[in-house]
Amino acid sequence: MREAYHEQLDHLAGALAVMCDMVAVAMEKATRSLLEADLALAEEVIGEDQAVDDERAKCEEHALALLALQSPVATDLRVVIAALHAAESLERMGDLAQHVAKTARRRHPQPVLPEQVRGTFAEMGRVAVHLARRAEQVIRTKDIDIARQMEDEDDAMDDLHKHLFSVLMDREWPHGTAAAVDVTLLGRFYERFADHSVSVARRMVFVVTGKMPGAEV
Amino acid sequence: MREAYHEQLDHLAGALAVMCDMVAVAMEKATRSLLEADLALAEEVIGEDQAVDDERAKCEEHALALLALQSPVATDLRVVIAALHAAESLERMGDLAQHVAKTARRRHPQPVLPEQVRGTFAEMGRVAVHLARRAEQVIRTKDIDIARQMEDEDDAMDDLHKHLFSVLMDREWPHGTAAAVDVTLLGRFYERFADHSVSVARRMVFVVTGKMPGAEV
Repeated sequence: MREAYHEQLDHLAGALAVMCDMVAVAMEKATRSLLEADLALAEEVIGEDQAVDDERAKCEEHALALLALQSPVATDLRVVIAALHAAESLERMGDLAQHVAKTARRRHPQPVLPEQVRGTFAEMGRVAVHLARRAEQVIRTKDIDIARQMEDEDDAMDDLHKHLFSVLMDREWPHGTAAAVDVTLLGRFYERFADHSVSVARRMVFVVTGKMPGAEV
Repeated sequence: MREAYHEQLDHLAGALAVMCDMVAVAMEKATRSLLEADLALAEEVIGEDQAVDDERAKCEEHALALLALQSPVATDLRVVIAALHAAESLERMGDLAQHVAKTARRRHPQPVLPEQVRGTFAEMGRVAVHLARRAEQVIRTKDIDIARQMEDEDDAMDDLHKHLFSVLMDREWPHGTAAAVDVTLLGRFYERFADHSVSVARRMVFVVTGKMPGAEV
Protein backbone atom coordinates (compact mmCIF):
# COMPACT_ATOMS: atom_id res chain seq x y z
CA MET A 1 0.00 0.00 0.00
CA ARG A 2 2.68 2.49 1.04
CA GLU A 3 4.74 1.56 -1.98
CA ALA A 4 1.83 2.09 -4.38
CA TYR A 5 1.12 5.41 -2.66
CA HIS A 6 4.70 6.58 -3.15
CA GLU A 7 4.78 5.44 -6.73
CA GLN A 8 1.59 7.34 -7.55
CA LEU A 9 2.80 10.36 -5.62
CA ASP A 10 5.97 10.34 -7.75
CA HIS A 11 3.78 10.42 -10.86
CA LEU A 12 1.87 13.35 -9.49
CA ALA A 13 5.07 15.21 -8.56
CA GLY A 14 6.43 14.46 -12.03
CA ALA A 15 3.35 16.02 -13.63
CA LEU A 16 3.81 19.11 -11.47
CA ALA A 17 7.45 19.36 -12.58
CA VAL A 18 6.27 19.25 -16.19
CA MET A 19 3.87 22.11 -15.44
CA CYS A 20 6.74 24.14 -13.92
CA ASP A 21 8.72 23.66 -17.10
CA MET A 22 5.76 24.64 -19.28
CA VAL A 23 5.04 27.87 -17.42
CA ALA A 24 8.75 28.79 -17.28
CA VAL A 25 8.96 28.42 -21.07
CA ALA A 26 5.70 30.36 -21.48
CA MET A 27 6.95 33.26 -19.37
CA GLU A 28 10.31 33.29 -21.12
CA LYS A 29 8.64 33.53 -24.52
CA ALA A 30 6.00 35.99 -23.31
CA THR A 31 8.72 38.31 -22.02
CA ARG A 32 10.58 38.06 -25.31
CA SER A 33 7.39 38.82 -27.24
CA LEU A 34 6.90 41.86 -25.02
CA LEU A 35 10.46 43.19 -25.30
CA GLU A 36 10.76 42.58 -29.03
CA ALA A 37 7.12 43.25 -30.04
CA ASP A 38 7.19 39.77 -31.59
CA LEU A 39 3.62 38.96 -32.58
CA ALA A 40 4.28 35.38 -33.71
CA LEU A 41 5.88 34.55 -30.39
CA ALA A 42 2.99 36.16 -28.49
CA GLU A 43 0.51 34.06 -30.48
CA GLU A 44 2.55 30.97 -29.67
CA VAL A 45 2.30 31.60 -25.93
CA ILE A 46 -1.42 32.30 -26.16
CA GLY A 47 -2.03 29.13 -28.17
CA GLU A 48 0.06 26.95 -25.90
CA ASP A 49 -1.77 27.86 -22.68
CA GLN A 50 -4.35 25.18 -23.32
CA ALA A 51 -1.60 22.58 -22.89
CA VAL A 52 -0.91 23.93 -19.40
CA ASP A 53 -4.60 23.66 -18.54
CA ASP A 54 -4.64 20.09 -19.87
CA GLU A 55 -1.61 19.18 -17.77
CA ARG A 56 -3.33 20.61 -14.74
CA ALA A 57 -6.37 18.41 -15.45
CA LYS A 58 -3.96 15.47 -15.62
CA CYS A 59 -2.54 16.40 -12.21
CA GLU A 60 -6.06 16.47 -10.78
CA GLU A 61 -6.74 13.03 -12.23
CA HIS A 62 -3.50 11.67 -10.73
CA ALA A 63 -4.47 13.14 -7.37
CA LEU A 64 -8.04 11.84 -7.52
CA ALA A 65 -6.85 8.36 -8.47
CA LEU A 66 -4.40 8.44 -5.60
CA LEU A 67 -7.09 9.51 -3.13
CA ALA A 68 -9.62 6.97 -4.41
CA LEU A 69 -7.26 4.00 -4.63
CA GLN A 70 -5.03 4.56 -1.62
CA SER A 71 -7.34 6.45 0.75
CA PRO A 72 -4.36 8.14 2.37
CA VAL A 73 -4.80 9.65 5.82
CA ALA A 74 -2.92 12.09 8.04
CA THR A 75 0.22 13.51 6.43
CA ASP A 76 -0.12 11.43 3.26
CA LEU A 77 -3.51 12.97 2.67
CA ARG A 78 -2.29 16.51 3.30
CA VAL A 79 0.53 15.94 0.84
CA VAL A 80 -1.92 15.11 -1.94
CA ILE A 81 -4.03 18.17 -1.17
CA ALA A 82 -0.89 20.35 -1.25
CA ALA A 83 -0.09 18.94 -4.68
CA LEU A 84 -3.60 19.84 -5.86
CA HIS A 85 -3.15 23.43 -4.69
CA ALA A 86 0.27 23.59 -6.37
CA ALA A 87 -1.33 22.51 -9.66
CA GLU A 88 -3.87 25.31 -9.34
CA SER A 89 -1.09 27.89 -8.78
CA LEU A 90 0.79 26.56 -11.80
CA GLU A 91 -2.26 26.89 -14.02
CA ARG A 92 -2.60 30.46 -12.83
CA MET A 93 1.06 31.11 -13.67
CA GLY A 94 0.31 29.94 -17.21
CA ASP A 95 -2.59 32.41 -17.36
CA LEU A 96 -0.32 35.21 -16.22
CA ALA A 97 2.27 34.45 -18.93
CA GLN A 98 -0.62 34.48 -21.39
CA HIS A 99 -1.75 37.89 -20.09
CA VAL A 100 1.75 39.25 -20.80
CA ALA A 101 1.63 37.83 -24.34
CA LYS A 102 -1.86 39.25 -24.90
CA THR A 103 -0.64 42.70 -23.90
CA ALA A 104 2.17 42.41 -26.46
CA ARG A 105 -0.36 41.32 -29.10
CA ARG A 106 -2.84 44.09 -28.30
CA ARG A 107 -0.28 46.85 -28.91
CA HIS A 108 1.46 45.23 -31.88
CA PRO A 109 3.22 46.58 -33.95
CA GLN A 110 3.76 49.28 -31.33
CA PRO A 111 6.07 48.24 -28.53
CA VAL A 112 4.23 48.15 -25.20
CA LEU A 113 7.12 49.33 -23.08
CA PRO A 114 8.69 52.76 -22.98
CA GLU A 115 12.48 52.45 -23.27
CA GLN A 116 12.77 53.67 -19.68
CA VAL A 117 11.29 50.46 -18.21
CA ARG A 118 12.46 47.88 -20.76
CA GLY A 119 15.43 46.91 -18.60
CA THR A 120 13.24 46.46 -15.54
CA PHE A 121 10.90 44.12 -17.39
CA ALA A 122 13.79 42.17 -18.89
CA GLU A 123 14.96 41.63 -15.34
CA MET A 124 11.48 40.81 -14.00
CA GLY A 125 11.12 38.24 -16.77
CA ARG A 126 14.48 36.73 -15.89
CA VAL A 127 13.58 36.44 -12.19
CA ALA A 128 10.12 35.03 -12.96
CA VAL A 129 11.47 32.31 -15.23
CA HIS A 130 14.23 31.53 -12.76
CA LEU A 131 11.72 31.12 -9.92
CA ALA A 132 9.56 28.73 -11.94
CA ARG A 133 12.69 26.72 -12.77
CA ARG A 134 13.66 26.68 -9.10
CA ALA A 135 10.24 25.32 -8.15
CA GLU A 136 10.82 22.58 -10.71
CA GLN A 137 14.22 21.84 -9.11
CA VAL A 138 12.62 21.49 -5.69
CA ILE A 139 10.38 18.80 -7.14
CA ARG A 140 13.06 17.01 -9.13
CA THR A 141 15.90 17.11 -6.60
CA LYS A 142 13.91 17.17 -3.33
CA ASP A 143 16.47 19.79 -2.24
CA ILE A 144 14.45 21.88 0.15
CA ASP A 145 17.21 24.47 0.60
CA ILE A 146 16.30 25.72 -2.86
CA ALA A 147 12.85 26.67 -1.59
CA ARG A 148 14.51 28.64 1.19
CA GLN A 149 16.68 30.56 -1.27
CA MET A 150 13.65 31.35 -3.39
CA GLU A 151 12.31 33.65 -0.69
CA ASP A 152 15.32 35.93 -1.21
CA GLU A 153 14.99 35.68 -4.95
CA ASP A 154 11.36 36.70 -4.69
CA ASP A 155 12.51 39.77 -2.71
CA ALA A 156 14.39 40.77 -5.87
CA MET A 157 11.08 40.70 -7.74
CA ASP A 158 9.45 42.85 -5.08
CA ASP A 159 12.29 45.36 -5.39
CA LEU A 160 11.89 45.47 -9.17
CA HIS A 161 8.16 45.96 -8.74
CA LYS A 162 8.70 48.81 -6.28
CA HIS A 163 11.20 50.39 -8.64
CA LEU A 164 8.60 50.24 -11.40
CA PHE A 165 6.10 52.10 -9.24
CA SER A 166 8.64 54.77 -8.38
CA VAL A 167 9.22 55.31 -12.11
CA LEU A 168 5.47 55.44 -12.77
CA MET A 169 4.78 57.83 -9.92
CA ASP A 170 7.56 60.18 -10.95
CA ARG A 171 6.12 63.49 -12.07
CA GLU A 172 8.36 63.23 -15.11
CA TRP A 173 6.62 60.10 -16.55
CA PRO A 174 6.21 61.39 -20.13
CA HIS A 175 4.64 58.36 -21.79
CA GLY A 176 0.99 59.01 -21.17
CA THR A 177 -1.74 57.18 -19.31
CA ALA A 178 -2.19 54.27 -21.72
CA ALA A 179 1.44 53.24 -21.28
CA ALA A 180 1.12 53.67 -17.51
CA VAL A 181 -1.90 51.36 -17.45
CA ASP A 182 -0.05 48.67 -19.43
CA VAL A 183 3.06 48.94 -17.29
CA THR A 184 1.00 48.78 -14.09
CA LEU A 185 -0.81 45.61 -15.11
CA LEU A 186 2.31 43.95 -16.51
CA GLY A 187 4.17 44.65 -13.29
CA ARG A 188 1.39 42.98 -11.38
CA PHE A 189 1.42 39.92 -13.67
CA TYR A 190 5.14 39.35 -13.05
CA GLU A 191 4.82 39.90 -9.34
CA ARG A 192 1.92 37.45 -9.06
CA PHE A 193 3.79 34.89 -11.16
CA ALA A 194 6.72 35.09 -8.73
CA ASP A 195 4.44 34.82 -5.68
CA HIS A 196 2.83 31.72 -7.10
CA SER A 197 6.27 30.19 -7.82
CA VAL A 198 7.23 30.56 -4.19
CA SER A 199 3.90 29.14 -3.08
CA VAL A 200 4.37 26.13 -5.38
CA ALA A 201 7.88 25.54 -4.02
CA ARG A 202 6.66 25.69 -0.41
CA ARG A 203 3.98 23.15 -1.17
CA MET A 204 6.42 20.93 -3.00
CA VAL A 205 8.73 20.90 0.01
CA PHE A 206 5.82 19.40 1.85
CA VAL A 207 5.04 17.00 -0.99
CA VAL A 208 8.59 15.67 -1.25
CA THR A 209 9.41 15.65 2.46
CA GLY A 210 6.03 15.32 4.19
CA LYS A 211 7.14 18.18 6.44
CA MET A 212 5.57 21.60 6.41
CA PRO A 213 8.22 24.22 5.65
CA GLY A 214 8.98 26.47 8.60
CA ALA A 215 7.78 30.05 8.66
CA GLU A 216 11.20 31.10 7.37
CA VAL A 217 10.86 29.17 4.13
CA MET B 1 -21.56 5.82 5.60
CA ARG B 2 -23.47 7.84 2.97
CA GLU B 3 -25.35 9.60 5.71
CA ALA B 4 -22.18 10.54 7.57
CA TYR B 5 -20.70 11.72 4.30
CA HIS B 6 -23.66 13.99 3.58
CA GLU B 7 -23.69 15.34 7.09
CA GLN B 8 -20.01 16.24 6.92
CA LEU B 9 -20.44 17.67 3.43
CA ASP B 10 -23.19 19.93 4.78
CA HIS B 11 -20.78 21.20 7.44
CA LEU B 12 -18.22 21.92 4.77
CA ALA B 13 -20.76 23.72 2.57
CA GLY B 14 -21.91 25.69 5.61
CA ALA B 15 -18.35 26.85 6.26
CA LEU B 16 -18.06 27.95 2.64
CA ALA B 17 -21.30 29.94 2.96
CA VAL B 18 -19.83 31.67 6.01
CA MET B 19 -16.77 32.57 3.93
CA CYS B 20 -19.01 34.02 1.19
CA ASP B 21 -20.70 36.21 3.77
CA MET B 22 -17.36 37.34 5.22
CA VAL B 23 -15.89 38.36 1.87
CA ALA B 24 -19.12 40.08 0.80
CA VAL B 25 -19.02 42.16 3.98
CA ALA B 26 -15.30 42.84 3.47
CA MET B 27 -15.82 44.07 -0.07
CA GLU B 28 -18.79 46.19 0.91
CA LYS B 29 -16.77 47.92 3.63
CA ALA B 30 -13.66 48.17 1.46
CA THR B 31 -15.65 49.92 -1.26
CA ARG B 32 -17.14 52.31 1.27
CA SER B 33 -13.68 53.06 2.70
CA LEU B 34 -12.51 53.79 -0.84
CA LEU B 35 -15.43 56.02 -1.81
CA GLU B 36 -15.50 57.92 1.46
CA ALA B 37 -11.77 57.91 2.24
CA ASP B 38 -12.72 56.33 5.57
CA LEU B 39 -9.49 55.25 7.23
CA ALA B 40 -11.11 53.51 10.22
CA LEU B 41 -13.22 51.38 7.94
CA ALA B 42 -10.20 50.51 5.76
CA GLU B 43 -8.29 49.43 8.89
CA GLU B 44 -11.26 47.30 9.92
CA VAL B 45 -11.22 45.41 6.61
CA ILE B 46 -7.47 44.92 6.76
CA GLY B 47 -7.65 43.64 10.33
CA GLU B 48 -10.55 41.29 9.64
CA ASP B 49 -8.90 39.44 6.74
CA GLN B 50 -7.22 37.07 9.18
CA ALA B 51 -10.66 35.75 10.12
CA VAL B 52 -11.27 34.84 6.47
CA ASP B 53 -7.96 32.98 6.36
CA ASP B 54 -8.87 31.17 9.59
CA GLU B 55 -12.24 30.15 8.15
CA ARG B 56 -10.50 28.81 5.07
CA ALA B 57 -8.23 26.73 7.30
CA LYS B 58 -11.39 25.41 8.96
CA CYS B 59 -12.81 24.44 5.55
CA GLU B 60 -9.62 22.56 4.78
CA GLU B 61 -9.88 20.70 8.07
CA HIS B 62 -13.51 19.79 7.37
CA ALA B 63 -12.52 18.52 3.94
CA LEU B 64 -9.53 16.58 5.22
CA ALA B 65 -11.62 14.96 7.95
CA LEU B 66 -14.21 14.02 5.38
CA LEU B 67 -11.60 12.48 3.10
CA ALA B 68 -9.86 10.63 5.91
CA LEU B 69 -12.97 9.30 7.63
CA GLN B 70 -15.25 8.58 4.66
CA SER B 71 -12.73 7.81 1.91
CA PRO B 72 -15.20 9.00 -0.72
CA VAL B 73 -14.67 7.87 -4.30
CA ALA B 74 -15.96 8.89 -7.74
CA THR B 75 -18.31 11.89 -7.67
CA ASP B 76 -18.29 12.17 -3.87
CA LEU B 77 -14.54 12.60 -3.98
CA ARG B 78 -14.67 15.21 -6.75
CA VAL B 79 -17.25 17.13 -4.77
CA VAL B 80 -14.91 17.47 -1.80
CA ILE B 81 -12.05 18.59 -4.05
CA ALA B 82 -14.34 21.19 -5.65
CA ALA B 83 -15.16 22.51 -2.18
CA LEU B 84 -11.44 22.79 -1.41
CA HIS B 85 -10.89 24.85 -4.56
CA ALA B 86 -13.88 27.03 -3.72
CA ALA B 87 -12.35 27.75 -0.31
CA GLU B 88 -9.11 28.83 -1.98
CA SER B 89 -11.01 31.23 -4.27
CA LEU B 90 -12.87 32.67 -1.30
CA GLU B 91 -9.64 33.30 0.59
CA ARG B 92 -8.35 35.10 -2.48
CA MET B 93 -11.53 37.22 -2.60
CA GLY B 94 -10.80 38.27 0.96
CA ASP B 95 -7.29 39.28 -0.11
CA LEU B 96 -8.69 41.36 -2.95
CA ALA B 97 -11.07 43.22 -0.64
CA GLN B 98 -8.07 43.85 1.61
CA HIS B 99 -6.10 45.23 -1.38
CA VAL B 100 -8.91 47.72 -2.01
CA ALA B 101 -8.85 48.79 1.64
CA LYS B 102 -5.05 49.11 1.60
CA THR B 103 -5.25 51.40 -1.41
CA ALA B 104 -7.72 53.61 0.48
CA ARG B 105 -5.40 53.62 3.49
CA ARG B 106 -2.28 54.41 1.44
CA ARG B 107 -3.77 57.59 -0.01
CA HIS B 108 -5.59 58.75 3.11
CA PRO B 109 -6.62 61.53 3.72
CA GLN B 110 -6.58 62.08 -0.02
CA PRO B 111 -9.39 60.32 -1.87
CA VAL B 112 -8.01 57.67 -4.24
CA LEU B 113 -10.62 58.15 -6.94
CA PRO B 114 -11.07 61.10 -9.25
CA GLU B 115 -14.70 62.21 -9.25
CA GLN B 116 -15.00 61.02 -12.86
CA VAL B 117 -14.74 57.31 -11.91
CA ARG B 118 -16.37 57.32 -8.46
CA GLY B 119 -19.71 56.22 -9.89
CA THR B 120 -18.09 53.35 -11.77
CA PHE B 121 -16.40 52.05 -8.65
CA ALA B 122 -19.58 52.42 -6.59
CA GLU B 123 -21.24 50.21 -9.21
CA MET B 124 -18.34 47.73 -9.37
CA GLY B 125 -18.50 47.42 -5.60
CA ARG B 126 -22.23 46.83 -5.74
CA VAL B 127 -21.87 44.10 -8.38
CA ALA B 128 -18.96 42.46 -6.54
CA VAL B 129 -20.83 42.26 -3.24
CA HIS B 130 -23.94 41.04 -5.03
CA LEU B 131 -22.00 38.23 -6.73
CA ALA B 132 -20.48 37.06 -3.45
CA ARG B 133 -23.98 37.05 -1.93
CA ARG B 134 -25.29 35.09 -4.92
CA ALA B 135 -22.58 32.46 -4.45
CA GLU B 136 -23.71 32.19 -0.83
CA GLN B 137 -27.32 31.73 -2.01
CA VAL B 138 -26.27 28.89 -4.32
CA ILE B 139 -24.84 27.11 -1.30
CA ARG B 140 -27.72 27.84 1.06
CA THR B 141 -30.64 27.25 -1.33
CA LYS B 142 -29.09 24.70 -3.71
CA ASP B 143 -30.80 26.75 -6.43
CA ILE B 144 -28.51 26.21 -9.37
CA ASP B 145 -30.37 28.67 -11.60
CA ILE B 146 -28.76 31.40 -9.53
CA ALA B 147 -25.35 30.26 -10.73
CA ARG B 148 -26.60 30.53 -14.29
CA GLN B 149 -27.78 34.10 -13.76
CA MET B 150 -24.44 35.02 -12.25
CA GLU B 151 -22.77 34.67 -15.62
CA ASP B 152 -24.84 37.60 -16.92
CA GLU B 153 -24.21 39.57 -13.79
CA ASP B 154 -20.49 39.03 -14.22
CA ASP B 155 -20.84 40.45 -17.74
CA ALA B 156 -21.98 43.66 -16.10
CA MET B 157 -18.67 43.74 -14.21
CA ASP B 158 -16.75 43.20 -17.43
CA ASP B 159 -18.62 46.11 -19.02
CA LEU B 160 -17.82 48.35 -16.07
CA HIS B 161 -14.18 47.28 -16.29
CA LYS B 162 -14.07 48.06 -20.01
CA HIS B 163 -15.68 51.42 -19.40
CA LEU B 164 -12.99 52.17 -16.84
CA PHE B 165 -10.29 51.45 -19.40
CA SER B 166 -11.96 53.68 -21.97
CA VAL B 167 -11.94 56.51 -19.43
CA LEU B 168 -8.29 55.86 -18.58
CA MET B 169 -7.19 55.67 -22.20
CA ASP B 170 -8.96 58.87 -23.11
CA ARG B 171 -6.46 61.52 -24.04
CA GLU B 172 -8.31 63.87 -21.76
CA TRP B 173 -7.50 61.92 -18.55
CA PRO B 174 -6.38 64.89 -16.48
CA HIS B 175 -5.64 63.20 -13.15
CA GLY B 176 -2.04 62.18 -13.65
CA THR B 177 -0.22 58.89 -13.69
CA ALA B 178 -0.43 58.08 -9.99
CA ALA B 179 -4.23 58.17 -10.09
CA ALA B 180 -4.21 56.10 -13.29
CA VAL B 181 -2.07 53.44 -11.60
CA ASP B 182 -4.43 53.25 -8.61
CA VAL B 183 -7.52 53.10 -10.79
CA THR B 184 -5.97 50.39 -13.00
CA LEU B 185 -5.13 48.15 -10.07
CA LEU B 186 -8.43 48.75 -8.30
CA GLY B 187 -10.31 47.87 -11.48
CA ARG B 188 -8.41 44.63 -11.65
CA PHE B 189 -9.15 43.80 -7.98
CA TYR B 190 -12.90 44.14 -8.53
CA GLU B 191 -12.84 42.19 -11.77
CA ARG B 192 -10.88 39.32 -10.18
CA PHE B 193 -13.21 39.31 -7.18
CA ALA B 194 -16.18 38.89 -9.53
CA ASP B 195 -14.43 36.14 -11.52
CA HIS B 196 -13.71 34.23 -8.34
CA SER B 197 -17.35 34.60 -7.22
CA VAL B 198 -18.54 32.96 -10.41
CA SER B 199 -15.96 30.22 -10.06
CA VAL B 200 -17.08 29.56 -6.47
CA ALA B 201 -20.72 29.39 -7.57
CA ARG B 202 -19.92 26.92 -10.37
CA ARG B 203 -18.09 24.69 -7.96
CA MET B 204 -20.87 24.94 -5.41
CA VAL B 205 -23.40 23.81 -8.02
CA PHE B 206 -21.30 20.69 -8.23
CA VAL B 207 -21.00 20.41 -4.46
CA VAL B 208 -24.73 20.70 -3.84
CA THR B 209 -25.94 18.68 -6.85
CA GLY B 210 -23.03 16.33 -7.62
CA LYS B 211 -23.43 17.42 -11.26
CA MET B 212 -20.89 19.47 -13.12
CA PRO B 213 -22.50 22.69 -14.41
CA GLY B 214 -22.86 22.73 -18.19
CA ALA B 215 -20.60 24.90 -20.31
CA GLU B 216 -23.35 27.54 -20.40
CA VAL B 217 -23.30 28.09 -16.63
